Amino acid sequence: MTDATLSTGSWRKAAYARLDQLTKPQGSLGRLEALAAEICEIQQTLQPVLDPACLLLFAADHGLANDGVSAYPRAVTAQMVLNFLRGGAAANVLSAQTGCTLRIIDVGVDADFAPHPQLTQSKAARGTASILHADAMTAEELHRALAAGRDAAQQALGAGHRVVLFGEMGIGNTAISSLLMSELTGLPLAACVGPGTGLDPAGVARKLAMLERVRQRSSEVMPQNDVAAHTMTLLQRYGGFEIAALAAAIGAVAASRTVALLDGFAVTVAALIAERLQPGTLGRCIVSHCSAEPAHRLLLDHLRIEPLLSLGLRLGEGSGALLALPLLRSSVALFRDMATFSSAGVSTASQGTNE
Amino acid sequence: MTDATLSTGSWRKAAYARLDQLTKPQGSLGRLEALAAEICEIQQTLQPVLDPACLLLFAADHGLANDGVSAYPRAVTAQMVLNFLRGGAAANVLSAQTGCTLRIIDVGVDADFAPHPQLTQSKAARGTASILHADAMTAEELHRALAAGRDAAQQALGAGHRVVLFGEMGIGNTAISSLLMSELTGLPLAACVGPGTGLDPAGVARKLAMLERVRQRSSEVMPQNDVAAHTMTLLQRYGGFEIAALAAAIGAVAASRTVALLDGFAVTVAALIAERLQPGTLGRCIVSHCSAEPAHRLLLDHLRIEPLLSLGLRLGEGSGALLALPLLRSSVALFRDMATFSSAGVSTASQGTNE
Repeated sequence: MTDATLSTGSWRKAAYARLDQLTKPQGSLGRLEALAAEICEIQQTLQPVLDPACLLLFAADHGLANDGVSAYPRAVTAQMVLNFLRGGAAANVLSAQTGCTLRIIDVGVDADFAPHPQLTQSKAARGTASILHADAMTAEELHRALAAGRDAAQQALGAGHRVVLFGEMGIGNTAISSLLMSELTGLPLAACVGPGTGLDPAGVARKLAMLERVRQRSSEVMPQNDVAAHTMTLLQRYGGFEIAALAAAIGAVAASRTVALLDGFAVTVAALIAERLQPGTLGRCIVSHCSAEPAHRLLLDHLRIEPLLSLGLRLGEGSGALLALPLLRSSVALFRDMATFSSAGVSTASQGTNE
Repeated sequence: MTDATLSTGSWRKAAYARLDQLTKPQGSLGRLEALAAEICEIQQTLQPVLDPACLLLFAADHGLANDGVSAYPRAVTAQMVLNFLRGGAAANVLSAQTGCTLRIIDVGVDADFAPHPQLTQSKAARGTASILHADAMTAEELHRALAAGRDAAQQALGAGHRVVLFGEMGIGNTAISSLLMSELTGLPLAACVGPGTGLDPAGVARKLAMLERVRQRSSEVMPQNDVAAHTMTLLQRYGGFEIAALAAAIGAVAASRTVALLDGFAVTVAALIAERLQPGTLGRCIVSHCSAEPAHRLLLDHLRIEPLLSLGLRLGEGSGALLALPLLRSSVALFRDMATFSSAGVSTASQGTNE
């Protein structure tokens, strides 16, 4: 069986045929079997490869961040970028542990950074405008952010990475993700808003009220009939630079049939945007975990996606994707390395005399 | 802060104090924070270590196995032991991937094996008796199985392993686990019986009917007032050798304050037995995953334990424990290696002017 003999969609089926020959009861590896088949389908091969792996971590600031939508001051975005570059963040620890290359892409942090081998400087601007008063970005800035995402993806692909993880850092971007989710899914804004990295209930209520004001301000007619134009308008209106860049990068990775491993709420929203700009993208993405942010579960349910992990994380930085990477590797190792019933001389089910 | 200054139970608290200094929103690593604190408490240290790791995989046969309680013939137990020794099973692939030593302990397989460096031969007998007609084992055989478990644990601990994973292989042992679970928890047998590795609904109904007959046969008075004696009687009555050995091994590992990482349904039942023989054991165990066997979720709910993974596996062999091991390592790496707010110069929550 060669690549040429298999039409689109059949790699998954061929992968299941192999899985059923391995020395285990049929289906007994549960989700790991579906995962291996999914990776085979994405990569169009029965010899899937997940190394080397790379995490693209997009960072940007939000004009809204100092208006009370986050438990943290806006300056934390830049502080955390420095923490990434010094190796002290969760993303660093987990990247090192999993042997995953970590690249930070500054697409709009409101601070200057010295050159660093892990840092790509691609600022679309120094943070978005405050969407209480204006659109988050100009059309030109949006195009810069999208180009930054595409470029980062192309570099990761050019370097031979076989799985690309996606993470984000941007104080205030949970609020922006809520706005985008509500607009993209039609679900009520109240259902899409949550505590983010640490707001109390009063803080969540204040955030919701502010986002309602934002939406009222910007309620003029949208280009509803043109999905791509509508999506671009939403990005320009609400931001953020990292979400736009993520959408472009996820789209580019999926288009190249490389595995895109998504992190939490903001990254899933970005993948939904990528799907609207380039249909078929979401089917080539794997969702690593369900965030503690309640809207993330709601969004995954809406998209009929079951994440691999549900560990109550609400950190971002690609942390959930890094935690799920070993599961992807395990699924591929089992697919590749387990013995078959015939090679191992193990009886298959119901060959006994008593069943 | 030294070991001597901390009384029992306070390691967890001290671990949380350190976690709250790391450069992340408080609690944002979710379950990984509880996991790190749990490991600190078990090991009584703020410098937890999880390497080297070892999987003890106990194998034995069941007299009931050819009476229609499993989708597989009894001969598969021995065939799978040979598969483990040749390196072709899921347990081998995942052990190699996670750098975990794999040891197979034959505590009662009905077959002879040539000596092998990964195999410990400690047969209590060549399979249990068929519990439709008699007790599974004699008191002498039970003591041999318990001793085999203790010995395997002591060897793993003597070799310096800091986390011990527990797995099993024994055609028919899901049925035995159902019987034991029902007796130990008081839950109805019907709620404790499921498809195991692959019975269809009619097969499950036959299995339940057979186990009801077993229970009627052996319904004479049990030593209810003496928990340990009652538990030993249950083991002798129903088996199996691998469950008895697991219980003894888990108890020994927990007693030494080494992390015991449990696999699926049968191993959790064994840990419940260990708890009854040696109260406090279960609190030093970590449950890796929830099996697709419905009774496992019921048992975990009954014990108020939330497993780390829920991926629909129903294989045994320690596969779920091996898949969860990277999560334990990640929790410890984050605890140990992340920067603190003060060292990284990152603002903590609510120090901004707007929240």
